[in-house]
Amino acid sequence: MENRYDIAIIGSGPAGLSAALNAKIRKKNFILFGNKDLTSKLVKAHKINNYLGFYNRSGKEIADEFSRHIDEMGIEITEERVNNIYAMGDYFGIMVNDKIYEATSVILATGVQYGRLLDGEERFLGKGVGYCATCDAPLYKNKVVTIIAYNKHDEEEANFIASIASKVYYVPMYDEEVEVDDSIEIVKGIPVEVIGEEKVKKLKLKDREIETDGIFILRDSVSPGQLVPGIKIVDNHIDVTRSMETSIKGCFAAGDVVGKPYQYIKSAGEGNIAALSAVSYLDSLKR
Amino acid sequence: MENRYDIAIIGSGPAGLSAALNAKIRKKNFILFGNKDLTSKLVKAHKINNYLGFYNRSGKEIADEFSRHIDEMGIEITEERVNNIYAMGDYFGIMVNDKIYEATSVILATGVQYGRLLDGEERFLGKGVGYCATCDAPLYKNKVVTIIAYNKHDEEEANFIASIASKVYYVPMYDEEVEVDDSIEIVKGIPVEVIGEEKVKKLKLKDREIETDGIFILRDSVSPGQLVPGIKIVDNHIDVTRSMETSIKGCFAAGDVVGKPYQYIKSAGEGNIAALSAVSYLDSLKR
Repeated sequence: MENRYDIAIIGSGPAGLSAALNAKIRKKNFILFGNKDLTSKLVKAHKINNYLGFYNRSGKEIADEFSRHIDEMGIEITEERVNNIYAMGDYFGIMVNDKIYEATSVILATGVQYGRLLDGEERFLGKGVGYCATCDAPLYKNKVVTIIAYNKHDEEEANFIASIASKVYYVPMYDEEVEVDDSIEIVKGIPVEVIGEEKVKKLKLKDREIETDGIFILRDSVSPGQLVPGIKIVDNHIDVTRSMETSIKGCFAAGDVVGKPYQYIKSAGEGNIAALSAVSYLDSLKR
Repeated sequence: MENRYDIAIIGSGPAGLSAALNAKIRKKNFILFGNKDLTSKLVKAHKINNYLGFYNRSGKEIADEFSRHIDEMGIEITEERVNNIYAMGDYFGIMVNDKIYEATSVILATGVQYGRLLDGEERFLGKGVGYCATCDAPLYKNKVVTIIAYNKHDEEEANFIASIASKVYYVPMYDEEVEVDDSIEIVKGIPVEVIGEEKVKKLKLKDREIETDGIFILRDSVSPGQLVPGIKIVDNHIDVTRSMETSIKGCFAAGDVVGKPYQYIKSAGEGNIAALSAVSYLDSLKR
């Protein structure tokens, strides 16, 4: 298939960026999913002294160097949220809202910012709980939908749903100002539990409850077990070999998602290994 | 023992330096063995584009940034050649010419520049072949000694031996000008084989042979199996877990010495992991 990528890299932290550098240098046809605003993930550290080569620089300064590096090399970040990745045998199907991308190999570098699941979230997954509002929108025509959003980018998705659903509640989990259509009701509060019987009935927040037919939880990244059904997880991290191979052939992983220590330079090193392993894998298919 | 270090780091490439940064940040009492002239190892690459954060820089430029980083953090490099490391149970004995250092944990980051062994080298090890001229000097009083030297620093060792032996041949394997005592005979040539019966009798070079009682081969680093007797080696590399633990408790390894890909950022990432694993190990001893 002409639109099939050699490598799809999921995540734009140090592991994903480092993998992308190597995919580029090795002249592979790759796509890098992530967030152009690298600093949102990287900026938290005030001073970082253990990234060899950078002394006494802030997370933001180092992120700026990373950004400059990939820009100079002509690497682009595709700002779409990957919802699921399916191993199809000789390729992977990468579900992104209403689109499917195809890639021969995958590098998972999604980090560990996926947070705790809500009580009841897993139980009602597919029964009113979802992670892709755009995908499931047709199911909620003239119904009540609640969106728990971890990123300002999600406002667009909320506006789209609002054009279909009878009512949209929007629970922003980020600090920036919320700018959504007037028809959307903004709910400030901390979600704690999904309540229902056969299907979702309510979202319980710390100090109130909302009656709703559907709940979309739009985290920056989903847990690896949800992202790639069937992948081997050990102690909440993707199990990998020293070559960064996961339990699924052609699928590699790097960075925080494969385990501690959670450190930039460790992630960048692993991204390098994962990319070179993916290149070897691609080469092996040609023989 | 008051002179016992928490961590001894062997090697000053990206893995060793990265380990040292973390040992420093974690306030451990450590010693870093290596070469202040980092560039001798790092300078070979003309352009490096896959060390995330540095675009289009030469090996020398990146080495300069590494140097500046460790200088700023007050990390010193001890320029002594480590000949052997012995696991003594609750500590390691680190043999450095005529001295022994002690450390509770060790990080091996010696790289892969140890080259091929000479034919006969292993067979005559301890029977005339040695790696530490200073240590074994007393054995060669009034005898003929040949030194194969890979580094200009070795000239000092040659001069010392010359004050004891009856005759010293010096085979420089480096490009710089050789400046040794006048009593030493400089031999230009490529050593190929150690010849003898019970003991060493001759060193065979490509185009001549030298009769000699002892041969010292002074490489920048010795192979890991020689350096740490008993350590598990797989495919010529030290076998490690994803936490950079070797087969010997308290002994960690990182960088090229543990396997491919041979890349700066991979080595630096592993140095970080090895140091944090050593810190955990040290903490576990206190409980």
